[in-house]
Amino acid sequence: MIYFNCDYNEGAHEKIMEALMRTNMEQSIGYGMDSYSEEAKRLIRKLCGKDDVDVHFLVGGTQTNLIVITSALRPHQGVLAANTAHINVHETGAIEGCGHKVLTLPSEDGKITAEQVEQAFLEHKNEPTAEHMVQPKMVYISNPTELGTIYDRDELKKLHDVCKKYHLFLFMDGARLGYGLQAKENTLDLPCIAENCDVFYIGGTKVGALFGEAVVISNDYLKEDFRYIMKQKGGMLAKGRLLGIQFAELFRDGLYFEISAHADRLAELLRTAFREKGYTFLVENTTNQIFPILPIEHAEILEKKFLFENQGKVDESHIAVRFCTSWATKEENVDQLIDAIRQL
Amino acid sequence: MIYFNCDYNEGAHEKIMEALMRTNMEQSIGYGMDSYSEEAKRLIRKLCGKDDVDVHFLVGGTQTNLIVITSALRPHQGVLAANTAHINVHETGAIEGCGHKVLTLPSEDGKITAEQVEQAFLEHKNEPTAEHMVQPKMVYISNPTELGTIYDRDELKKLHDVCKKYHLFLFMDGARLGYGLQAKENTLDLPCIAENCDVFYIGGTKVGALFGEAVVISNDYLKEDFRYIMKQKGGMLAKGRLLGIQFAELFRDGLYFEISAHADRLAELLRTAFREKGYTFLVENTTNQIFPILPIEHAEILEKKFLFENQGKVDESHIAVRFCTSWATKEENVDQLIDAIRQL
Amino acid sequence: MIYFNCDYNEGAHEKIMEALMRTNMEQSIGYGMDSYSEEAKRLIRKLCGKDDVDVHFLVGGTQTNLIVITSALRPHQGVLAANTAHINVHETGAIEGCGHKVLTLPSEDGKITAEQVEQAFLEHKNEPTAEHMVQPKMVYISNPTELGTIYDRDELKKLHDVCKKYHLFLFMDGARLGYGLQAKENTLDLPCIAENCDVFYIGGTKVGALFGEAVVISNDYLKEDFRYIMKQKGGMLAKGRLLGIQFAELFRDGLYFEISAHADRLAELLRTAFREKGYTFLVENTTNQIFPILPIEHAEILEKKFLFENQGKVDESHIAVRFCTSWATKEENVDQLIDAIRQL
Amino acid sequence: MIYFNCDYNEGAHEKIMEALMRTNMEQSIGYGMDSYSEEAKRLIRKLCGKDDVDVHFLVGGTQTNLIVITSALRPHQGVLAANTAHINVHETGAIEGCGHKVLTLPSEDGKITAEQVEQAFLEHKNEPTAEHMVQPKMVYISNPTELGTIYDRDELKKLHDVCKKYHLFLFMDGARLGYGLQAKENTLDLPCIAENCDVFYIGGTKVGALFGEAVVISNDYLKEDFRYIMKQKGGMLAKGRLLGIQFAELFRDGLYFEISAHADRLAELLRTAFREKGYTFLVENTTNQIFPILPIEHAEILEKKFLFENQGKVDESHIAVRFCTSWATKEENVDQLIDAIRQL
Repeated sequence: MIYFNCDYNEGAHEKIMEALMRTNMEQSIGYGMDSYSEEAKRLIRKLCGKDDVDVHFLVGGTQTNLIVITSALRPHQGVLAANTAHINVHETGAIEGCGHKVLTLPSEDGKITAEQVEQAFLEHKNEPTAEHMVQPKMVYISNPTELGTIYDRDELKKLHDVCKKYHLFLFMDGARLGYGLQAKENTLDLPCIAENCDVFYIGGTKVGALFGEAVVISNDYLKEDFRYIMKQKGGMLAKGRLLGIQFAELFRDGLYFEISAHADRLAELLRTAFREKGYTFLVENTTNQIFPILPIEHAEILEKKFLFENQGKVDESHIAVRFCTSWATKEENVDQLIDAIRQL
Repeated sequence: MIYFNCDYNEGAHEKIMEALMRTNMEQSIGYGMDSYSEEAKRLIRKLCGKDDVDVHFLVGGTQTNLIVITSALRPHQGVLAANTAHINVHETGAIEGCGHKVLTLPSEDGKITAEQVEQAFLEHKNEPTAEHMVQPKMVYISNPTELGTIYDRDELKKLHDVCKKYHLFLFMDGARLGYGLQAKENTLDLPCIAENCDVFYIGGTKVGALFGEAVVISNDYLKEDFRYIMKQKGGMLAKGRLLGIQFAELFRDGLYFEISAHADRLAELLRTAFREKGYTFLVENTTNQIFPILPIEHAEILEKKFLFENQGKVDESHIAVRFCTSWATKEENVDQLIDAIRQL
Repeated sequence: MIYFNCDYNEGAHEKIMEALMRTNMEQSIGYGMDSYSEEAKRLIRKLCGKDDVDVHFLVGGTQTNLIVITSALRPHQGVLAANTAHINVHETGAIEGCGHKVLTLPSEDGKITAEQVEQAFLEHKNEPTAEHMVQPKMVYISNPTELGTIYDRDELKKLHDVCKKYHLFLFMDGARLGYGLQAKENTLDLPCIAENCDVFYIGGTKVGALFGEAVVISNDYLKEDFRYIMKQKGGMLAKGRLLGIQFAELFRDGLYFEISAHADRLAELLRTAFREKGYTFLVENTTNQIFPILPIEHAEILEKKFLFENQGKVDESHIAVRFCTSWATKEENVDQLIDAIRQL
Repeated sequence: MIYFNCDYNEGAHEKIMEALMRTNMEQSIGYGMDSYSEEAKRLIRKLCGKDDVDVHFLVGGTQTNLIVITSALRPHQGVLAANTAHINVHETGAIEGCGHKVLTLPSEDGKITAEQVEQAFLEHKNEPTAEHMVQPKMVYISNPTELGTIYDRDELKKLHDVCKKYHLFLFMDGARLGYGLQAKENTLDLPCIAENCDVFYIGGTKVGALFGEAVVISNDYLKEDFRYIMKQKGGMLAKGRLLGIQFAELFRDGLYFEISAHADRLAELLRTAFREKGYTFLVENTTNQIFPILPIEHAEILEKKFLFENQGKVDESHIAVRFCTSWATKEENVDQLIDAIRQL
């Protein structure tokens, strides 16, 4: 069985494994105060083009989402997000578990617009009943989204502007950020994201690391005491250097971008193969996730040899599915899948 | 200005005020352990036809909802409710503030069905991703709903059955229960509700009391330590007898039902007046809330003399509004409003 | 049986009951936006000598403590309090239930000192382990304390200064504030409290009202969105005017102070009777609670006719007990108790 | 500088690093459902001598404590623990952050007794005020404790019995469990712990792993839906096999016990050196932490070359300090430290 079901099937990029081996018996201070973590922070600050952002390393995505969001909100405040958002659907109520409502906006492609944010904010500010409703205070987007789509520079700028106008924090979940930044149609880069978002994170778990997410905080208000909340929520790794070492490898010489491009290129090959076969897609995108709509019997043929995800029936005879490539995907496995597609 | 905007504009029924005056300087034990509270509990148990239900008195609706729900759920569990539900829209995230997600079901008339509950439950139980989603464990309904509609005996029974089948708690918010039980088309009664719901409450705040909601718990699991959670959430009234005295007055001789019928009867007069004028309604119902759809200019005429609630535009020239009657509504005020309707 | 066990055995002062009766069938807007609540706020602002304090009315003490504290703190922050503090011992973990640790300071008489606060703050600020500990951000005191003692002007000023120095909020629980302000040795007044505390409340439940606590907020940071949190925690009374009417009665003509003085005067009579009998006290104080240490057999004689509280054995043959007077205590009952004491 | 400040300065045991390298590019299912995790669970179940315990892997200690505790308690319940307990002092209020009070018991050596538990339980069960207090429902112990002491078989059995008597859960934090089990005076083993505790964990972070704690649940009630809460609290590692691989290495051939014994043996050498020099200890123990009391000037000499922890002054001229050995401690470093001690 060849796995295309997600982008975290393997361990870590070999350079990361080598770095972990090389440093293994060194002694260092705990909790992310070590020199490797310092180096990784420096590298990320530089790539963001901002000396004054704070950088913190956490282990996983749900943990990062809940820590960032709960550190930002007062008890009566909530976070606006697409109804498809990971925090709304697939984190077992982690945000509500910290006391905050996820206020959902309808979305077909995983993205939300500045107009939706404005409208939702104004509906919740409608005096005098406003205080009987949760107060929107943060906007959560992911880039790429759950559906592999990405925001362009203009869309992000508009979200930034509406957030600024209404004093909302803009938070980008970048669990797959590399795959977004290297996508064919991408117009974003780290400086642009750091400029427009109050806080975002650069995902490592799905992009070459064993585990790890690098949180970048631009907004001064959100910087204060962030480590306290990391600790309280169980997110401060004792051997914090494990995160520093990994992110230093990823960002010292562009490894992160290189392996992300690899995944996007292979995804495009698969996408082309599906398209040439005449299949349509649940959503059009250019990142490492591909969402073809297949006749059910074709899906059943493919699943004998390949692992992929079911996204649900679209009609009686068709099903939408998800294939993922990643930093670790082997070209030969992609070739095998393409052959199989052509033979359908 | 005559108020039809809600059902809690006045104080309490005169018999309640008299009872409070009469007992004012008596000395009694606090926290609801007094003899008046005992009497009120006895009366309610008898009306429910069940000796073994637990009865507790709380001050208000949001407080009651959050205490009942948080007492029932483990951290990863949530409550299914209509998207229009009070707990979803108008309690400033009180349920999320206790750590629990409100899992919403679409509803046009404020009600949800057993089929919806079953479908939502099964979607959330879909292994192996189930544990990445909030686990539904309670079903919240209100009767009457936010839109003044009521459940019939068969609908309630079906909800009960589906809850039993999947080990869900069924919770009925009865903030306006009296107005539901006395409605023309009602088929429910207290024994039937106590039989079918694991927990429900009988609203006093909107039905003749100064304040107060009587929680009735049938399910043994939900009975345990309920008073601890009342105390922790600030819901245990020091002079608990104030609640006992009020509910004893309401239920000693049927006052609760009598004053509820009064409100429903006046609502029906208003409903008829609107209907005779040719207006349609946002929702058809027979309880104390009336939701006519008015030409905007007619609404503007009425609001010069009467206070009522805006439910939102239905098209360019029409608006849905809400008028409420209550135990306290004076017949002469209803007459004035009917006159005004006829002159539109 | 004559009750001296607490200060909330009766209903409300007759002037309050009359006001509630007089206004009962008036129609008014809900949630504390009515004119009676406005009047009560004006009166309290005036008595505090500060136009810019915010005033809110809540139903009970636990509710008030949890709402004030959770509105002030971020998730990693805690509240310093005496180990005897009500929030630490007798609120079923209401503060922890909102996510915050109560950081306790040892206290013999219910009071804490500026020195203790400074020391605790510095211990928790000890870098770099500070972020592994809860961050103290608020100081909770009660006046009178659980042991009936009071702070003097100098002590309060010093607490204010240390809080200011370390950016801590100072919060005074004034559930029995009237009995403190009218105590023989008291040096505080409302302007002094409003000046030195970021937030405090004036208790009504134990001082003449049916129920109700008036929160006074001086600190601008704490004012923001306070009503949202009131609503979320179930503390926003639908018929908010009930609170406004009561506090207006208490403060329009000095009723609050007059009835407090009554209780303190009667307490002093009891205290003198115990002292003349040769008893010592668990704690020396001049407010409405009296804590004599009695031979166990004397306590057993008194409890045949009088209800009072057991504070625990002090040695094999002696027990500390608590008697409370209140606004409602009848002089004749005090006389009977004094007779009984003399006959021991 | 040679580090003796804690037991998590290095990476992981070389066998673990090799296993991670060897399996790195394998594809496997996420979230701990992989075959390595299954193997590790099997090994642990076998060592515990119980087929029916549930085993789960988490990343770190604070995370594990908060997940175990919050999964066990209802909102009004708290956990009894020594005042020195990690959850009380060094986890930034993680337990309170989940809504639960840590009810502290005084302790000199980090341990608590069955008698203390019984007394505390009974004090909190004192009707009718019980419901105004947090309800004790779990007992948290650590073995070894924060002060390196250990429970013996009889003490554990008595704790078990008192917990059973009062329906309390007994939870052992075993962050350093290996160092306890291999200590000279130890009488416990895994079957005995699994038998007496409702839930405990075997620490990997401090005992040879890069990170990881293995939770073992004996009590059926605590087993239900544990993974939901792991996910909600951000504790479910995407690449769960990383934990499985590590614990399989640790337990396949006794590595865990072997490396623990190494640390304890080196600690004993240091302890002897301090003792021969005439120093006393803050606490007597036989695990990997040593707490000598040094003249301040001696401590200052040692800290030029060695990193260790300050435990606070014991008198004007003496300070208690902590040295830790671990699985990774080199014999030559211990020799250097012993030399330095002898030269003081």
